Amino acid sequence: MTGKEFFSVRTVADALAGFRPGHRTAVEVVSLFDALHRVPAEEVRAPTALPGFAKSTVDGFAVRAADTYGASDGLPSYLDLLGAVRMGAAPEVAVRSGGAVAMPTGGVLPDGADAVVMVEYTAETMPGTIEVTRPVAPGGGLVRADEDVAAGAPLVAAGRPLRAPDLGMLAAAGVTSVAVHARPRVAIISTGDEVVPPSTVDLAAGQVRDATASALAGLVVDAGGAPVIAGIVGDEPGALKDRLTEVLADADLVVVSAGSSVGARDETAGAVAAVGSVWCHGLAIKPGKPTLLADCGGIPLLGLPGNPLSALVVFGQVGVPLLWRLSGCETPPPAPSTRARLARDLASAAGRLDVVQVRLRDGVAEPVFGPSALLSVLTRADGYLVVPEPATGLDAGSDVEVILYR
Amino acid sequence: MTGKEFFSVRTVADALAGFRPGHRTAVEVVSLFDALHRVPAEEVRAPTALPGFAKSTVDGFAVRAADTYGASDGLPSYLDLLGAVRMGAAPEVAVRSGGAVAMPTGGVLPDGADAVVMVEYTAETMPGTIEVTRPVAPGGGLVRADEDVAAGAPLVAAGRPLRAPDLGMLAAAGVTSVAVHARPRVAIISTGDEVVPPSTVDLAAGQVRDATASALAGLVVDAGGAPVIAGIVGDEPGALKDRLTEVLADADLVVVSAGSSVGARDETAGAVAAVGSVWCHGLAIKPGKPTLLADCGGIPLLGLPGNPLSALVVFGQVGVPLLWRLSGCETPPPAPSTRARLARDLASAAGRLDVVQVRLRDGVAEPVFGPSALLSVLTRADGYLVVPEPATGLDAGSDVEVILYR
Repeated sequence: MTGKEFFSVRTVADALAGFRPGHRTAVEVVSLFDALHRVPAEEVRAPTALPGFAKSTVDGFAVRAADTYGASDGLPSYLDLLGAVRMGAAPEVAVRSGGAVAMPTGGVLPDGADAVVMVEYTAETMPGTIEVTRPVAPGGGLVRADEDVAAGAPLVAAGRPLRAPDLGMLAAAGVTSVAVHARPRVAIISTGDEVVPPSTVDLAAGQVRDATASALAGLVVDAGGAPVIAGIVGDEPGALKDRLTEVLADADLVVVSAGSSVGARDETAGAVAAVGSVWCHGLAIKPGKPTLLADCGGIPLLGLPGNPLSALVVFGQVGVPLLWRLSGCETPPPAPSTRARLARDLASAAGRLDVVQVRLRDGVAEPVFGPSALLSVLTRADGYLVVPEPATGLDAGSDVEVILYR
Repeated sequence: MTGKEFFSVRTVADALAGFRPGHRTAVEVVSLFDALHRVPAEEVRAPTALPGFAKSTVDGFAVRAADTYGASDGLPSYLDLLGAVRMGAAPEVAVRSGGAVAMPTGGVLPDGADAVVMVEYTAETMPGTIEVTRPVAPGGGLVRADEDVAAGAPLVAAGRPLRAPDLGMLAAAGVTSVAVHARPRVAIISTGDEVVPPSTVDLAAGQVRDATASALAGLVVDAGGAPVIAGIVGDEPGALKDRLTEVLADADLVVVSAGSSVGARDETAGAVAAVGSVWCHGLAIKPGKPTLLADCGGIPLLGLPGNPLSALVVFGQVGVPLLWRLSGCETPPPAPSTRARLARDLASAAGRLDVVQVRLRDGVAEPVFGPSALLSVLTRADGYLVVPEPATGLDAGSDVEVILYR
């Protein structure tokens, strides 16, 4: 035990901007049904215009707009009823001057018509004659054939995760499969002689069940990744390096939750340095300083602090953006957040990102403090706030943004 | 075509509070790995205290705190080094007055010790003697055996979806499976003679591909449900009623995206009334007024407007809370949101909920207008804002909360 560790500390902002291993996941084609929140590998363009035909947006009558000009309750326009359009079928009749064709919402506009007058402003006073009591402008009561999307225009962009309405737009265009980046496989390695699997019923003295791997797996799923629980590695020299070499063959991101003792941390740092190029050892973040980032031939490796709270905080700040980038998305989708009033002063060192767990009550954010060895600090919190790197603290009563756990 | 529809209009607030079909999904036991965002059917309590032993939170030396009182750089305390605790093992030595035992972070506190002094405030000046230069209080440098969770205390609550840290807490307690509510099966029926499956390559005149079902399926997945695409039903009398009867046998929630024409809407209303008790026909929401809510023997049925935009808005406001409630969660997890400045005045009728799509640029929310027949209104938006029921509008420059699409 030396009490000395070599740190090359970087800020979180530096890490997000500067730590950029080149690997991206492969492209795979998935059905629309499996495409939610997946990241398109390329822009998808509309094969044809949508809706594809000029379409009524109201129940009413297709007309020539000019035939309705000046119409009012006192002086209606009278038009000959020429027929009716059926849903999902081509019109069987055209509109001529002085004529009208009955239209359902969503029906195809007949030739010769340039507007649809709403049924509310009409009456069939005599069989075969429609009385119109309000004028309609050309283009009124309808959408154009290419008003939703023009042929060849983008339906969805590359690099932005697909949302529910995007699936609808793709379906409307007849696009039923999409080329997307594969979900990043995230190998999660736990280390430490004291760590045993969660299924262990009776613990020997000093043993702890592996909490971090399960929690990390949840964060990985939330960020669109596929977690691979890669087991627990003891503190014996060489064991971690061997395991890292194995998992690097089949992972897009490797996460090591380091042992908590200084000896275990030294062993982790040595093993990581043996399999990759260390980009930083130490992040200016609290909690989470003893974080390692390394580039293993394009595959990012994230060495997390041994305490679960610190590990989860660092993974949220650094691992989640890495994960999205691996799947081709530079701007992760937004996390749920809310504004709140800070209940008390918070101190922070300039140049360091502070992540403070908070409970929310009636719009007030109350910090939850506790040793980062305790998981309950996280499970008692509703979310967290970030004291940015330049700030030296926040005053009680400040308006703060709280990122909510979901 | 009558132009008249019978509406019994209710507000969205009424619907959320008063429309409460009794059905809940069955309880099933899932592994921790599959439990993310699932809703526990009952509270889970800690079988034993956690961490289960008094544990060092620093690298240093276990001591009796009183032996360090008054210690300083000028006048250190000198303690006998009695041994060392190994990670994951029981201490082989106790601490006596005047003695110290070397501790790794996470090690078990030896008998007789009541604090751990950090290695930074110590030096081994002679072999076997530890010099301590700062006092430590009783309880310093350690967590108690039950400080994370006491035996029998709740690990997770019933009815609140499990978050990533909850999975960690359950793992730490050795709980590797959880009784949760089954994902609600949501049958999605599309109606209308004009509607054809998304896989249809060439459209005949007036046909449209079913966009709403795919988009709804995405919203269902986001809310923890299991979508079941239950096909397209034409406008012929009786067909929808028959299909509703079939799907009600095996669904927890039934969603019908109604035909867009008044005739199709009438047919939907009739079919729904035949299979359930109609709670409202018409919601005070824009877009989305022609919404139906019915209770079919405890199974909620949601009849959505025919336009995709209206259908998705209503599903978000009413269907999503229903879905969470079916799985035992009364308070849905928060949606991502942000504050923005409204770019222009928005008018709204008092008593009606207005949902306005917006684009965000540099903190300014710019409304996206367009006929609700257009899906592109949704895909162009970054999110939406809600003008609440009592308000008659919002002024340009107002501070608004924008719910972000994810």
